[in-house]
Amino acid sequence: MRTQTEAGNGAALRVQAGYGHVVGVDIGASNLRVALADMNGTILGKWSASTKETSSPAMVIEQIHTGVESLLKQASVPWRSLLAVAAGAPGITDADAGVVVATSYLRGWKDVPLQSLLRAALRVPAAVENDVRMAAIGENWRGAARGVADFVFLAIGTGIAAGVFANGRLIHGADFAAGEIGYMHVPGTPEEAAQDGAPGSLESVIGGEGLRQQWLRGCTETGVAVSRGLSATEILERARAGDELAAGILHRSAKILAYAVYNVSLVLNCKLFVLGGGVGMSEPLRDSTRHFLEQFNEPVRPKLTISSLGQDAQLIGAIRLAMNKAESRIGVKVSD
Amino acid sequence: MRTQTEAGNGAALRVQAGYGHVVGVDIGASNLRVALADMNGTILGKWSASTKETSSPAMVIEQIHTGVESLLKQASVPWRSLLAVAAGAPGITDADAGVVVATSYLRGWKDVPLQSLLRAALRVPAAVENDVRMAAIGENWRGAARGVADFVFLAIGTGIAAGVFANGRLIHGADFAAGEIGYMHVPGTPEEAAQDGAPGSLESVIGGEGLRQQWLRGCTETGVAVSRGLSATEILERARAGDELAAGILHRSAKILAYAVYNVSLVLNCKLFVLGGGVGMSEPLRDSTRHFLEQFNEPVRPKLTISSLGQDAQLIGAIRLAMNKAESRIGVKVSD
Repeated sequence: MRTQTEAGNGAALRVQAGYGHVVGVDIGASNLRVALADMNGTILGKWSASTKETSSPAMVIEQIHTGVESLLKQASVPWRSLLAVAAGAPGITDADAGVVVATSYLRGWKDVPLQSLLRAALRVPAAVENDVRMAAIGENWRGAARGVADFVFLAIGTGIAAGVFANGRLIHGADFAAGEIGYMHVPGTPEEAAQDGAPGSLESVIGGEGLRQQWLRGCTETGVAVSRGLSATEILERARAGDELAAGILHRSAKILAYAVYNVSLVLNCKLFVLGGGVGMSEPLRDSTRHFLEQFNEPVRPKLTISSLGQDAQLIGAIRLAMNKAESRIGVKVSD
Repeated sequence: MRTQTEAGNGAALRVQAGYGHVVGVDIGASNLRVALADMNGTILGKWSASTKETSSPAMVIEQIHTGVESLLKQASVPWRSLLAVAAGAPGITDADAGVVVATSYLRGWKDVPLQSLLRAALRVPAAVENDVRMAAIGENWRGAARGVADFVFLAIGTGIAAGVFANGRLIHGADFAAGEIGYMHVPGTPEEAAQDGAPGSLESVIGGEGLRQQWLRGCTETGVAVSRGLSATEILERARAGDELAAGILHRSAKILAYAVYNVSLVLNCKLFVLGGGVGMSEPLRDSTRHFLEQFNEPVRPKLTISSLGQDAQLIGAIRLAMNKAESRIGVKVSD
């Protein structure tokens, strides 16, 4: 076992001087968010920028550097106090190698060595993880799944994906593609396999765009010409307000989501599903899905809850992962 | 790290005298099987008996004792050479506590402390595990999934259940019910939730009894009165021989199985499925399911293969688990 004094590199000194600091990064399809935290996980500042015009790896890294510099200055924390950085990125991410293998966002990053780039830019140890798994880490640490060893974070936005904890550990799968349940087939979803790059069977119906398509088809069929531009969340809210067309869509979508949640729970025997993402955080969808789930008793009925961290889940997960990295660097556990 | 000489209890002596021996037990719904192996995992003898008339825990334990005594005598191995025993049992099994929580077989065992009973009867450390997970351990050690860190052993008999390896470890789930995918809903299975104790949606169609029901309904509808007593495997073989009714059943069942396999692979990103059980080992079913799976490319296409250990998978898994138990007892790893 290593002790503080064995850790070298002045780490012991830094630990005594307030444990040092870490940076968490959430690289999204349209926004980049950076947070600075101390080693208690307390966030000292947040910084964000658009990635719409600056999606190349080099540009994103430069943005992150700018953000970190700004946050450190604002909090009067010196660069040498920085212990580690962790970043979540969309798509297939090899967390071991630290590489974003492929994503349909960020103009299609392919084999981007994000971990090395971050380490080189910030001169501290770095870790990377898929964005949905990062959110699961966040929820497990400080959110709706605090301390739960077996649970699923289910992100429903345009696409659908799950971050899976089993035995208290993240499941990555053989190709870091575990949890890609947007392709799942359940009663009520298209029976055909998804084409290359096209939405999966499940997300084509109950993802954000799928819900909008259901709405538009309904408007056309019923001759309702108004409100064609509603968002998925607005459609689900309309159902609660009594709109008949929207209520039908909510009913159908919740039933399909209940099948998907139940199927996943059968594989993993996880009792808790934390819903995140723009569509996933819809209360009408949660309530209606719960109603359908109540019909499933065997072998256990999974519980549904909405993310308590919301859009901060990934950023908070990134802080936790950076803290893990820092703790393994200084050879001592300073947080729980 | 412990050394051989620290292990005490004469373990070091036994290790030098051929590493000692272990016993693996497969407690099935109708048969009890016991095997004696050395610490290389070489099976020295097998023994079996019916559990149809003797299904109480006390009687099964007595049978196991008789079997072990007989095997030791036959192989001229003294009792004191026995290092550990492991047993697989049907139903929900708490592997940590060593308890068979509930099973619909063995006249409904409930909260049976199998591990303690085995330890008391054989006077060696004992381990217990669910039968399907035990088979997965066997396939991972010496079968079709040798050395594969992420795979699923899929047992299809009367019921359907999966033994899941992720990150090289078994997934048990929050209530030791992981892998109970017989309840899964996919396109083509009944949409209603299963009633208490009734077969699940998936197994009600493609489990052994489900296949027979499909056949019987087909016979009635087509007016074919012959061959009503065929087994599920025989029905699937008939499809290969050109029988039209059987071919329709195979087509339908393989499509449903392909959906189930694909859904599970999405959750876990496991590339390999090892098929076991009476129905699962049917070659026509495997071939036809493979055909349907070829349509699924995103994000990865899972591979299907038939168990190479067959009905010995559980017994071999039990030997492996007993060896683990023995190795942790003597504090030294003597096998891989």
